[in-house]
Amino acid sequence: MENLENVADCKETVSPQNNSGSTMNSTEPHFDGKSMGFVLVHAGAGYHSESKAKEYKHVCKRACQKAVDRLRAGGLALEAVTAALLELEDSPFTNAGTGSNLNISGEIECDASIMDGKSLNYGAVGALSGIKNPVLVARRLLSEAQKGKLSAGRIPPCFLVGKGAEQWAISHGIPACLTDKMTTKFSLSAYKRNKRKMELAEQVETKRRRQSSGRGNDFRCLERVADIMVEGEENHSACLDTVGAVVVDHEGNVAAAVSSGGLAMKHPGRVGQAAHYGCGCWAENARDVSLYSTAASTSGSGEHLIRTILARECSTAMQSENAHQALLEAMQNKFISSPFLAGEDCVLGGVIVLRCCTCGEAQNSEDIKALLVEFLWSHTTESMCVGYMSAQDSKARTRISRLPPGAVAGQSLAIEGGVCRLGTGSD
Amino acid sequence: MENLENVADCKETVSPQNNSGSTMNSTEPHFDGKSMGFVLVHAGAGYHSESKAKEYKHVCKRACQKAVDRLRAGGLALEAVTAALLELEDSPFTNAGTGSNLNISGEIECDASIMDGKSLNYGAVGALSGIKNPVLVARRLLSEAQKGKLSAGRIPPCFLVGKGAEQWAISHGIPACLTDKMTTKFSLSAYKRNKRKMELAEQVETKRRRQSSGRGNDFRCLERVADIMVEGEENHSACLDTVGAVVVDHEGNVAAAVSSGGLAMKHPGRVGQAAHYGCGCWAENARDVSLYSTAASTSGSGEHLIRTILARECSTAMQSENAHQALLEAMQNKFISSPFLAGEDCVLGGVIVLRCCTCGEAQNSEDIKALLVEFLWSHTTESMCVGYMSAQDSKARTRISRLPPGAVAGQSLAIEGGVCRLGTGSD
Repeated sequence: MENLENVADCKETVSPQNNSGSTMNSTEPHFDGKSMGFVLVHAGAGYHSESKAKEYKHVCKRACQKAVDRLRAGGLALEAVTAALLELEDSPFTNAGTGSNLNISGEIECDASIMDGKSLNYGAVGALSGIKNPVLVARRLLSEAQKGKLSAGRIPPCFLVGKGAEQWAISHGIPACLTDKMTTKFSLSAYKRNKRKMELAEQVETKRRRQSSGRGNDFRCLERVADIMVEGEENHSACLDTVGAVVVDHEGNVAAAVSSGGLAMKHPGRVGQAAHYGCGCWAENARDVSLYSTAASTSGSGEHLIRTILARECSTAMQSENAHQALLEAMQNKFISSPFLAGEDCVLGGVIVLRCCTCGEAQNSEDIKALLVEFLWSHTTESMCVGYMSAQDSKARTRISRLPPGAVAGQSLAIEGGVCRLGTGSD
Repeated sequence: MENLENVADCKETVSPQNNSGSTMNSTEPHFDGKSMGFVLVHAGAGYHSESKAKEYKHVCKRACQKAVDRLRAGGLALEAVTAALLELEDSPFTNAGTGSNLNISGEIECDASIMDGKSLNYGAVGALSGIKNPVLVARRLLSEAQKGKLSAGRIPPCFLVGKGAEQWAISHGIPACLTDKMTTKFSLSAYKRNKRKMELAEQVETKRRRQSSGRGNDFRCLERVADIMVEGEENHSACLDTVGAVVVDHEGNVAAAVSSGGLAMKHPGRVGQAAHYGCGCWAENARDVSLYSTAASTSGSGEHLIRTILARECSTAMQSENAHQALLEAMQNKFISSPFLAGEDCVLGGVIVLRCCTCGEAQNSEDIKALLVEFLWSHTTESMCVGYMSAQDSKARTRISRLPPGAVAGQSLAIEGGVCRLGTGSD
């Protein structure tokens, strides 16, 4: 995979199509049809400090490896994407599962969803407490729904929230986990810092109301402190590190998943895009009307991603001829300049997408000769951490993508990606 | 409005376009620009017995009247649609607010959402207990979000669930309500009946597993009873009576809302389409790229309506030239034959839609001379109860729409609608 670093380096003006000659050559001694497949993961669109970059890259690397392990063992996209998410959720550095942001009451409430491009089935949980891996509950909802109706003809749920979701998970054998065990030193100290910021901001607001004229020194001082802290909050956007993954397997099936602890200091019961159909993740296998199998997973300000149904928009856009151009236009027209966010001056989010098509002649329906995979990421946040790996690679590649110098977060975007051809022959 | 009964009578093969000459003449002594507007409501797609038809029609009539009262007082679409929903939720006969289905634990958990076509803002609540009118909480979430960011730069939520949603509502001045007060004799007896059905069905299932051969008389008897009862449940689909409304006001703004107690005997925490963006309701004013203002509200099996994002699909389809044909195709291709529901043999749902455009010259931006409103409903369920009224009418019209004789619920559809021209001049 000599060319991939270059491919991944391509910037906004460079179309990955220009690099379509690049290939990811097998690093395995013997090529095996079952070990075909590709995974792209993200550890959030937000702000990734240089000091923490190493940790974010490490977890992306491990998540790719876990997904590829499943693919090499003959696992399908749905299994592989779940394996990647488990690793991402378990990292104390990401805002998902362990290490999730605390809400305004100091509790962890997680959102997660998963979609299978083969069956088009979907499962989601929202505001879920007390379960270490929310993606497992989403996955289980998906697989339970595939079994058909419940007793007395009841339709099985695809979306559960809150206490009911927790009870359902436990009754389906997913173990409970104390919130304390999912809380990290970092999330707790961030909570205390945020709490203080809010108190300051609210003091300023109260004083502003009381003293509409004749402001004293005390007030001005307080106002300055609160403004600085609020500014810090917005610029660092540490609260946006949702995680997710998109996968294609050896049969050419795609799957996508996403998991999030949600915004820091959110109101209890707030559900973000990670639990919202079409907004957090999307996966659709190729069929009659669509040439490509496509998948997407998003991260960022949940409310903005919900109101633009961004995962589905980006996934659908991938049916266009030029994937790079299509994603660029989707991010520009359906997100930054979306009429659904007309009142917002700062639209923060990111997305990973992949599309693939089969090439060559299949020997039988489950044995594809080669897959052409195009993968991209784009974000309007300061940075986005991604990792990717094919089942034929010896290790994952990772990247902290950053906005170009001078670009304004929430108004500009970065877009990068690559292409790889997986399989035996050449055609 | 002499012609409207005919218009409303138009069946699947008749396009409402054929009736575009029909008008709703003002029945008010003096025409006032502010009293222009139109409302279409539904009391669910499901099964409406002849014996209860009168009650369903009555509540639709009252809901239309409440919306029109707001329109006549100069209220905008958002206010009018809320007024309609409050009336629909308060009826003990509908599965929303008071009289909602009980979940498997015997509790009421409601979903509701509202969308404003003017601002494209949206608010939703899911699995909400202890609040008499869930739509009020959704509406308040929408209006709070319009005020901008919370303290310390936090983005306000657009979707709250469970206990957190209840606490948020109470802290915003929406009074709590004991579940007992929202439970009706009917919902309680339905719960007891359903509980018995489920126990029987589960007994049968257990016996089936234990006695894979050599079935006894006891088992056969139990199986017959359970089958009959489950069949009753499916055929009557009483659990689907979600309510909703779509409105256009004198400025030509549209709004939509939906509210539901969810499926009978659902798992606690299950959230259906009524709380799901794009699935329960949709409203979008006309803008550069779209000629018509369109709005939709759905009812039926929540999981099916979620996985097809039906409200948005139907609303978007209304930009086609022929509204009737577009809705017919959307219901056929994006619902009954949707690849997202490929595994389902019975796809139950219904939708109300309206689209409107302004005609004539406006004297100023807030004074539209005339509105052409096309309104339609379509369902795959046995029946759907709707009501409609213009601000110039003296009373609402109601209708229990039923599938044509011999049509199979979940596989066939009914579609009806009408056209009306509101305003002063003729052109």
